[in-house]
Amino acid sequence: MTTDSWINETLYPDWGQRFRVKRELARVRSDFQDIVIFESFSHGRVMVLDGVIQITEADEFVYQEMLAHVPLLAHGACANVLIIGAGDGGVLRRVLQHRGVKRAVMVEIDGEVIRLSKEFLPTIAGGAWADPRAEVIVGDGIDYVKRASAGAFDAIIVDSTDPIGVGEVLFTDDFYSNCARILTARGLVVNQCGVPAMQADELRDTSIRRAKFFPYVSAYVAAVPTYVGGFMTLGWAAKDPSLARVATEEIRARAEAAGILGTTRYWTPEIHTGAFNLPPYIARHLPA
Amino acid sequence: MTTDSWINETLYPDWGQRFRVKRELARVRSDFQDIVIFESFSHGRVMVLDGVIQITEADEFVYQEMLAHVPLLAHGACANVLIIGAGDGGVLRRVLQHRGVKRAVMVEIDGEVIRLSKEFLPTIAGGAWADPRAEVIVGDGIDYVKRASAGAFDAIIVDSTDPIGVGEVLFTDDFYSNCARILTARGLVVNQCGVPAMQADELRDTSIRRAKFFPYVSAYVAAVPTYVGGFMTLGWAAKDPSLARVATEEIRARAEAAGILGTTRYWTPEIHTGAFNLPPYIARHLPA
Repeated sequence: MTTDSWINETLYPDWGQRFRVKRELARVRSDFQDIVIFESFSHGRVMVLDGVIQITEADEFVYQEMLAHVPLLAHGACANVLIIGAGDGGVLRRVLQHRGVKRAVMVEIDGEVIRLSKEFLPTIAGGAWADPRAEVIVGDGIDYVKRASAGAFDAIIVDSTDPIGVGEVLFTDDFYSNCARILTARGLVVNQCGVPAMQADELRDTSIRRAKFFPYVSAYVAAVPTYVGGFMTLGWAAKDPSLARVATEEIRARAEAAGILGTTRYWTPEIHTGAFNLPPYIARHLPA
Repeated sequence: MTTDSWINETLYPDWGQRFRVKRELARVRSDFQDIVIFESFSHGRVMVLDGVIQITEADEFVYQEMLAHVPLLAHGACANVLIIGAGDGGVLRRVLQHRGVKRAVMVEIDGEVIRLSKEFLPTIAGGAWADPRAEVIVGDGIDYVKRASAGAFDAIIVDSTDPIGVGEVLFTDDFYSNCARILTARGLVVNQCGVPAMQADELRDTSIRRAKFFPYVSAYVAAVPTYVGGFMTLGWAAKDPSLARVATEEIRARAEAAGILGTTRYWTPEIHTGAFNLPPYIARHLPA
């Protein structure tokens, strides 16, 4: 048991957050990355991959709600959803909350992240692992999208690490090209694009890439407490322009029908539609 | 010259941000607080009061734009503005950008903050110190609002530290009661209310206090990169309910007339109106 020690996030060389550690729960070197889970004094349990904070029990709801509910309600009739990464199960849980979802395939490359999340972060996924609509695959997301059938999915949610290390291939031409192929005509892909105040390249470069394969590329924002540095952006790539412009009242009606309304702590219909209004310091990194 | 040293923010005991310090520029114990200004590797120059990050050159625009432009454009015809605190001059600069402002009184208790900001953070205030409409007073904001005439101001902007230490009296009944008295019939006060994910008490307790003297109490949000922890809230206390509900297109027209449109990096008309839509985890701390 460690007391009065601190963990410094190492995402940026010159600035970052630090947590006082109550107790370290796991420290594993998997085939892909260093995984640390600890109990903090301030944010409940925290998972760290290669020195970068991935999730805390205290604020996971912000990221998960915005990553799952926004694409599903913007689409309005998602039956088949593909989740890449998100080994903690939090996105899977939010996707399965939607009544209309018939099948949620989750492809996580690192089985250790799933195993350790089930053991030490059980509340993040809740009952999602046992849901009959869930198909959890330990495997390579790149390979999965290569092999999947055309039009197999209505939405793809990419909850990866930043485009360094294990997550890098999830930001390539090859990956996005296959995403476009396996999505239906109204299909869309969302993915985490980092915090533009610190990592503007991530949004800029991956947006250019998405724009090669999707006609409607944009981003929306969420203020995630422990993805420090102001708004994080969630990349948006759609085949249909109307998805990013659904009116607030229609989003509310869809959320009501889907069983989402009233279950959220960050997402609301107003926040959903407002999240597409980007501050100029972020908007300038998107393709014109 | 200090190299490869870090400054840890001490706002919260168990979590916070840290900066790698390129060079320390000033370290002063004033009559009111410890003031440190340093050059960071990541955020330009940074000012720290009693261990809490106040402003960085890299992201000051977010906070200043939202603290100044939102109340002034919501009101629509502010001629006389009172600023309490904000010794760096950044709010003063934004207020004076508005063509209709005839007089901006700034009352900062700590003359050392002003002196050091002029010396080491000159770009924050720009030419505001020399503007003939600016009246800069080194003095106690509590006393100032006690002595000011009824109806003297259209808007009051409180840019204080948190309600601990020197800023504490700016969150009292006495202070808000005088604010209500010295405001015009359409007048409003805004003030920084901390980051609810970490300091929910600050929003909750001060909102209850504002509600004793103003019929329309609410809050709006801004994602300030170095006020870490997700959205910060800016408290809102108005005599007129319509100010928080001005339509986006009307805000745009006012910003155009005021000379603000196109000058901002965070604020837009859409972000202005959207900022009043609070996530449920924040809204629950406001009076019903």
